[in-house]
Amino acid sequence: MKFIQKLAAIQKKNNSLLCIGLDTDTAKIPARLRGASNPQLEFNRHIIESTSDLVCAYKLNLAFYESAGTQCYETVRRTLELIPPEIVTIGDGKRGDIGNTAEHYVKILFGDWKFDAATVNPYMGKDSVDPFLQSDEHGIFLLALTSNQGAKDFQYLPCGGKPLYEHVVRRAKKWNTKNNIGLVVGATHPRELQRIRSIAREMPLLIPGVGAQQGDLEKTVRYGCTKRGDLAIVNVSRGIIYASGENDFGRVSRTAAQTYRDQMNVIRGKYFMK
Amino acid sequence: MKFIQKLAAIQKKNNSLLCIGLDTDTAKIPARLRGASNPQLEFNRHIIESTSDLVCAYKLNLAFYESAGTQCYETVRRTLELIPPEIVTIGDGKRGDIGNTAEHYVKILFGDWKFDAATVNPYMGKDSVDPFLQSDEHGIFLLALTSNQGAKDFQYLPCGGKPLYEHVVRRAKKWNTKNNIGLVVGATHPRELQRIRSIAREMPLLIPGVGAQQGDLEKTVRYGCTKRGDLAIVNVSRGIIYASGENDFGRVSRTAAQTYRDQMNVIRGKYFMK
Repeated sequence: MKFIQKLAAIQKKNNSLLCIGLDTDTAKIPARLRGASNPQLEFNRHIIESTSDLVCAYKLNLAFYESAGTQCYETVRRTLELIPPEIVTIGDGKRGDIGNTAEHYVKILFGDWKFDAATVNPYMGKDSVDPFLQSDEHGIFLLALTSNQGAKDFQYLPCGGKPLYEHVVRRAKKWNTKNNIGLVVGATHPRELQRIRSIAREMPLLIPGVGAQQGDLEKTVRYGCTKRGDLAIVNVSRGIIYASGENDFGRVSRTAAQTYRDQMNVIRGKYFMK
Repeated sequence: MKFIQKLAAIQKKNNSLLCIGLDTDTAKIPARLRGASNPQLEFNRHIIESTSDLVCAYKLNLAFYESAGTQCYETVRRTLELIPPEIVTIGDGKRGDIGNTAEHYVKILFGDWKFDAATVNPYMGKDSVDPFLQSDEHGIFLLALTSNQGAKDFQYLPCGGKPLYEHVVRRAKKWNTKNNIGLVVGATHPRELQRIRSIAREMPLLIPGVGAQQGDLEKTVRYGCTKRGDLAIVNVSRGIIYASGENDFGRVSRTAAQTYRDQMNVIRGKYFMK
């Protein structure tokens, strides 16, 4: 199935724009799981079992798995096996390198781990992105305007009358011949999100920055969706997976996820639905 | 020891600007090593034992280790243990993410694996770079102007009269309060290399693109070095480690490394030494 179709289908089926970010930090795993042979995997299992009917996607922040050492490969692989197959999976490593290197990232992300999509850094240009675009069954989210303070250092630089991030958006649109490119746009920049959606009317937008980073949920949904009210993928990590921090984290994370999903659907009802 | 001092010391001791890129592709390992329990590690062992008196640095392209799967963590860790401690080690993953994520990359690269330096992508700005700069015992190489075709897509974009890569160079210089920032500049852009060296007079420059990518060695050394004739780190990967492809690869890679080192020293003699 094409990536873009899979995304639209699960957003409809689960009636959800919510992506849960599995930024699973070994230091923050509740006490009762710490004795498990693989605490990260057990934590993820609980989160996934508690929330998988509420989300359109799970995003694995690869740094948190790499920093855990030898178990990285297996933890990622087995976490993906726990995710119901109709849900979109995003490998968030923000990779980007010359072609022969990028092919190795593609092999591990799409071939071995079987992510549906990956985040990719645009700085090195088209030939660093191309290896990720070979099959329309896999998508990418190209970093356009990120949610952090440092976004202002380069992404806002005016280049020929347009900020750099807008050049990224316009190139991405041009490169999108297989309809499998999306963009990362931080919820902390609602006006720019609106502008980017007006340029990239049909591309999926992966939107971090709600929750711990305090992006505005109403503006995120209103400006991030297509005119049909979909294809915004609103990522919440810490605000859901560490909502409790105690042994009841599964239940509490479900409540948090449900609240986010329902709030977003109220907003969708207001701006998009008939 | 400070990273910058370690680099200067080994360039002097081994009289070498050469960095060997350990882009060790499991598919290209000679037949006699393929039965080993860890062919990548054995290949690296031979290359390191054959060349370590000829180089200032080894650069491990992390994609090649990640794509090998479960052994990644151990192969990188044990490869670094094989490298004599006075030689600079560079973890080439071109990472870049928000602060709390970047800290996880720092943990694995500098804490667990114990690389001296890492390549970092500048697109997300200062707060994504800061976690890598906390100790002057560790350095980074910020991507400025890369060796690939795609460099033209964004890196050359004129922003307020200067190309984007020059903004990166000037910001890097400003951020360099601990004297542990270097830049990546492709050998395929000799004029721009000269320009960057004229701005960043004392920063280490990691220069890929000689060899398989056909950058000009004379211009690379002439324009890449400081006025003392050092702090250019000229990376060659495929041109050395796959110089043979047969079972004699250790010997042949040594010959190739020696040729590169000596050629660069002839050029240094011409332009820098009294």
